[in-house]
Amino acid sequence: MTDVALSNLTACQAATEIARGAISAQDYTRACLARIEEVESEIQAFAHFDPAHAIAQARELDAHKARGGTLGPLHGIPVAIKDIIDTSDYPTEFGSPLFKDRRPFDDATIVAKLRSAGAVILGKTVTTEFAYFHPGKTRNPHDTARTPGGSSSGSAAAVASGMVPLAIGSQTNGSIIRPASFCGVFAIKPSHGLVSRHGVLTLSRALDHVGPFARTLEDLGLILETLAGFDPEDPDTRPIAVPPFRKAVTEKFPLEPRIAFVRTPIWDKADIATRTAFEGLAEALGPACYPVELPERYAEAWEAHRVVMASDMAHRFGALVDQRGDGVSSVLHDLVAEGRKVTATQYLAARDLAQSLAKGLNEIFEECNAIITPAAPGVAPIGHNSTGNPAFCSLWTLVGLPSISLPLLEGEGGMPLGVQLIGARNDDVRLFRTAKWLAEKITPKGKKRAKKS
Amino acid sequence: MTDVALSNLTACQAATEIARGAISAQDYTRACLARIEEVESEIQAFAHFDPAHAIAQARELDAHKARGGTLGPLHGIPVAIKDIIDTSDYPTEFGSPLFKDRRPFDDATIVAKLRSAGAVILGKTVTTEFAYFHPGKTRNPHDTARTPGGSSSGSAAAVASGMVPLAIGSQTNGSIIRPASFCGVFAIKPSHGLVSRHGVLTLSRALDHVGPFARTLEDLGLILETLAGFDPEDPDTRPIAVPPFRKAVTEKFPLEPRIAFVRTPIWDKADIATRTAFEGLAEALGPACYPVELPERYAEAWEAHRVVMASDMAHRFGALVDQRGDGVSSVLHDLVAEGRKVTATQYLAARDLAQSLAKGLNEIFEECNAIITPAAPGVAPIGHNSTGNPAFCSLWTLVGLPSISLPLLEGEGGMPLGVQLIGARNDDVRLFRTAKWLAEKITPKGKKRAKKS
Repeated sequence: MTDVALSNLTACQAATEIARGAISAQDYTRACLARIEEVESEIQAFAHFDPAHAIAQARELDAHKARGGTLGPLHGIPVAIKDIIDTSDYPTEFGSPLFKDRRPFDDATIVAKLRSAGAVILGKTVTTEFAYFHPGKTRNPHDTARTPGGSSSGSAAAVASGMVPLAIGSQTNGSIIRPASFCGVFAIKPSHGLVSRHGVLTLSRALDHVGPFARTLEDLGLILETLAGFDPEDPDTRPIAVPPFRKAVTEKFPLEPRIAFVRTPIWDKADIATRTAFEGLAEALGPACYPVELPERYAEAWEAHRVVMASDMAHRFGALVDQRGDGVSSVLHDLVAEGRKVTATQYLAARDLAQSLAKGLNEIFEECNAIITPAAPGVAPIGHNSTGNPAFCSLWTLVGLPSISLPLLEGEGGMPLGVQLIGARNDDVRLFRTAKWLAEKITPKGKKRAKKS
Repeated sequence: MTDVALSNLTACQAATEIARGAISAQDYTRACLARIEEVESEIQAFAHFDPAHAIAQARELDAHKARGGTLGPLHGIPVAIKDIIDTSDYPTEFGSPLFKDRRPFDDATIVAKLRSAGAVILGKTVTTEFAYFHPGKTRNPHDTARTPGGSSSGSAAAVASGMVPLAIGSQTNGSIIRPASFCGVFAIKPSHGLVSRHGVLTLSRALDHVGPFARTLEDLGLILETLAGFDPEDPDTRPIAVPPFRKAVTEKFPLEPRIAFVRTPIWDKADIATRTAFEGLAEALGPACYPVELPERYAEAWEAHRVVMASDMAHRFGALVDQRGDGVSSVLHDLVAEGRKVTATQYLAARDLAQSLAKGLNEIFEECNAIITPAAPGVAPIGHNSTGNPAFCSLWTLVGLPSISLPLLEGEGGMPLGVQLIGARNDDVRLFRTAKWLAEKITPKGKKRAKKS
């Protein structure tokens, strides 16, 4: 009765088929549930999901359509939500035993937006503890001996293994871009302030970003159009007209873009295979791509990121560590201790540096459409005690610039290796256009759905 | 030839007379210069002024009018600018010998706005050192043995003594409201983010506010309409339609307002005369005014304000104190040392408390139009080694709420005593309406221009 092959449809394809009545929301949701049934025991992407509740949502969406109701852009599309994002119908436990069975009363703003757009909230995906470094149970769908990356481990793995076409994650350091790279999917960390964080566990107001995962760029654009926009409850969002992200990736690029190849001051942290792959990629792009070296002070970005994150998280989690420290991982204990040693003037200097570095990057975007750089130092490491190194993301998170990971390269053992494109602040739509151009230019090797597909 | 009595005109009156051609911009400017000639040697409100340059500006404005040019709302009106606000045509020395003869290249945003509105930039007014506590040379026009208050000492004194109808000051703790109270003039510290601070010396992004002084509420509304509004260079301003402040004080109040009499947790810091005067005032207002007690945690506001100000100023002035400490006052040395001891988590907790206290006050404004409380613990103290106590302003500055000082009471020795009205955040226009209602209700005793008028 259920055709699991339907779960191969992209969100855009499924939305079209559902809208024209070729399939129902229930068909597509059941297909995703069937796929979950196939692979979840091995991947463990979900913290919570409830097939009956998912189907009930899909049934109501079908009934709404049958009544002649208006269809949202995500009508009948299952979406998985990282477990630090509040949902009124599923527990939200932050990946911490201290919050077991915590049930939010309200949806986060973005969850409410997804529901209004017709999405089926399929379940909650595994996060590292409080979206920091202590890993959850999820395995990498391309090789279960490896980490999926973190902290948005379950969202990346669920999309990569075809359990859902779309999922939501968050990034305070490298928690969207790194797992997207490790799991071989598309993902965007949008400009700081483009997507509301109201109802999402706060680690750091300055550094927290929310963004989606998808298996195609067009799907990524589709969901970002729903997620983006002003929310009076998130003081860092701005009243804007939401840009046409999906259109940006279906239109032809008006001009050949120019891409800055930025090795960054931590280039030697990338493994040799990655460095070679990116040197080759830059060369393959021809004169459209040329190396740009960042001024020396950009080397201070990693320390500044650390200072801001440690201080903000010590502020947020200090009382919890003091009161219920037994239930908190040692990495978080250490971070809180570190953050408590930072002085206010060190903190303010780090915030100032971030602003100044962001301004300096504008110069690049006057000449170039995007920066190209690795999404991670290499492919997903073997083992599950670590979620890998976020260093290739820290700078771009600190300055709040939008960045996309594209699964265009392959590294050691045929594992995916993400290409990171970074765009100008608040010009996420141009970044989408450039990503589309790049994706068409570079034929991905062995593009496939991971694990048994 | 020059009629010094013209300087008695309010800005609104003068603007009308100039617009209809009854007097010229030069006439009004010369009258102000003549008044300065009369009293400046005693008051010492100005750090810099240049009569020839002022008259040249007025002459150009008259020529513009003669050519049939459009007149701005402040056409021909002299305005004095606190000496921490950049002006391209006058030095801007921050009240510090270390910045003697510093000449900014550009106008601050608000100075450029004033020029576009037709104002004559008459000169720069005395500020305490870096707008902190070390006093400048200015005397109180009502009694030169007393402080005019600070840090906007010169702006308050220049308006109070009739040297200019309008002046600009700034407040990080009590630097607009306190000198307005001590000098017996109207002034507003607008909602945080209503008026741009680009080109104004930054003490603390969270606490800095810019606002005007005037001898009437209508004049205050007139100039605030020019000052208010979005500036992409000040990240705390918002795109808004500028409210009709002047109209708000010329229209009849639609309903009898309700006023919350808030003694604040530092009530016992007010002297007995002030406490008695305010108890009497609250009673005189009848049932429209009733006491509201703030919850206990509001007592923490003063410490939080201190933590934020000390940290932000240590961040801003630390390097200067280290490199050129001989030229810096001991109070600023002490503040920097204090700020450097604050930890990042203490700083972040203080910022959070400020947000939370601000939210809590919303409840009052659901019932009441404004809060009434003293602008200062008493009248201007005798002596010039201190600029008085800002404690009755700290809470309202910390939470970013708009506050107006109205010169409606008289204290010891016939000295002015300001009534402070505080409004809901971003509802400065309702605050103006309420201030107008209050000013009409209470007949000020002995309203007059200070000193020899």
